[in-house]
Amino acid sequence: MDVAAYMAERIPLIDRAIEARLDGLANGDEAIPSALAGAMRHLLFPGGKRLRPVMALAAAEAVGGPAAAALPLGVAVEFVHTYSLIHDDLPCMDDDDLRRGRPTVHKAFDEATAVLAGDALLTEAFAVLADGAEESEASLRLAVVELLSRSSGALGLVGGQVDDLAFEAAGSGSAGTRAARLASIHARKTAALFRASIEGGATLAGADPGKRAALARFAQDVGIGFQIADDLLDADSGEAASILRLQGIDDAKNGAEALLGRALGEIEGWGEAAEPLRALARFAIRRER
Amino acid sequence: MDVAAYMAERIPLIDRAIEARLDGLANGDEAIPSALAGAMRHLLFPGGKRLRPVMALAAAEAVGGPAAAALPLGVAVEFVHTYSLIHDDLPCMDDDDLRRGRPTVHKAFDEATAVLAGDALLTEAFAVLADGAEESEASLRLAVVELLSRSSGALGLVGGQVDDLAFEAAGSGSAGTRAARLASIHARKTAALFRASIEGGATLAGADPGKRAALARFAQDVGIGFQIADDLLDADSGEAASILRLQGIDDAKNGAEALLGRALGEIEGWGEAAEPLRALARFAIRRER
Repeated sequence: MDVAAYMAERIPLIDRAIEARLDGLANGDEAIPSALAGAMRHLLFPGGKRLRPVMALAAAEAVGGPAAAALPLGVAVEFVHTYSLIHDDLPCMDDDDLRRGRPTVHKAFDEATAVLAGDALLTEAFAVLADGAEESEASLRLAVVELLSRSSGALGLVGGQVDDLAFEAAGSGSAGTRAARLASIHARKTAALFRASIEGGATLAGADPGKRAALARFAQDVGIGFQIADDLLDADSGEAASILRLQGIDDAKNGAEALLGRALGEIEGWGEAAEPLRALARFAIRRER
Repeated sequence: MDVAAYMAERIPLIDRAIEARLDGLANGDEAIPSALAGAMRHLLFPGGKRLRPVMALAAAEAVGGPAAAALPLGVAVEFVHTYSLIHDDLPCMDDDDLRRGRPTVHKAFDEATAVLAGDALLTEAFAVLADGAEESEASLRLAVVELLSRSSGALGLVGGQVDDLAFEAAGSGSAGTRAARLASIHARKTAALFRASIEGGATLAGADPGKRAALARFAQDVGIGFQIADDLLDADSGEAASILRLQGIDDAKNGAEALLGRALGEIEGWGEAAEPLRALARFAIRRER
């Protein structure tokens, strides 16, 4: 399975869907303010790896559905991911001037516009999920609204960020306690959105409850493994990577491999259709090592 | 129709539903960070007039449904309204230290917590709408997710706030141009959420498309009239009220009365069931004059 080829084929579908959504807002009958449109686009084009939306599509395929069933969710999770980056970069949070080598949104525009662009992307994520659904799809779409809001809200992404800021500020406690707190933060800041993408993508493709539950566990492990991989890349580049200071690089690598193995075990025997999802899990956890 | 008695009867239903939702987040199996829970509650208890949720309930009744059908939306619109106040008060926006005589959220907590509490309330609004729906309700709930996200997003609340900040910063243009721009801002910052509340409440009660459309027009007029009433109250208290400086107090009062008359015309002949909604419209537009 050539994961790069799979991604190269799927990413344009996602990019076109994101583009169409932003165009509809910026150039519709009631256009949005141009500064807002610009700030919403800023981190989306050029964007990141689109890993979450590609996984949503692959999860739909893994349960026998068409990738296109998960496309609204692909757009929605990329909007939520982007909003979280914009707000995390704000002066009152991580105070970052650069992201992916370009000015952060509050630097390229201003702070108020950055807060509001994040707010708009979060809100539009739910609009995308609700929009254009057939009557017969309504209950699946609504289930995914629930999953995405739970993953993104106080119990998920937002709660994880609150604890992350408190963790950075405190800087004390035993290594064991700190490692446990970091794991809980990563589960909410990173793994929750992987879960919404993967379990949600399969849900939109009509997966049964057993497969949904297996993919929820798969996504949890892949999300944590992805975060460890991120920390290892930061360590290579000399940046602080706090879980590694607590755990050591070899332990982290072994831990990530164990998570990958357990994740792949969840979807063992799912056949060829699940091969892209397996390949993406390996890519997410082993990339550039 | 005693509007005060109607509100006194309905508000406890809404308060209990909001309380139950916040309690579920703060004290569930996976509890949220306590600072986040506190910041999310801060402007909700004690809260405001709960006008939007009461209107959602009254709209459900106006089309022959039970008020309870609109309760999830009542919670959701109060969450969205509260999130918008928290973010509008931030130092990078209106920089307000007080709201309803108490410290704003970024003063009572800190700026990062205020941004995140707003984010969480916005996200939970959609969780409330998705949660606990019967299979048979799914397409109505999804329609309301669409309505609320459209009203709250780049085309509605958020876009209105972006233009409002630009309007305050610019401070130039002819009186006519400025009045037209302010009207467009009020339509998005205020009327859009009234529309989501009222049209959405009726939608959840199973209203037909004709009644939904009439209530959308009703809500638009009531929302603009409510904003004018707010400006008139600010003028009484000596605060700046920009539309009045452009238009004059008598013109504003006449304009608000005309909007009320047109709104009531939209639901003429709807009988006793619509009486609470009529009374709330009068209250919203004529309060304390």
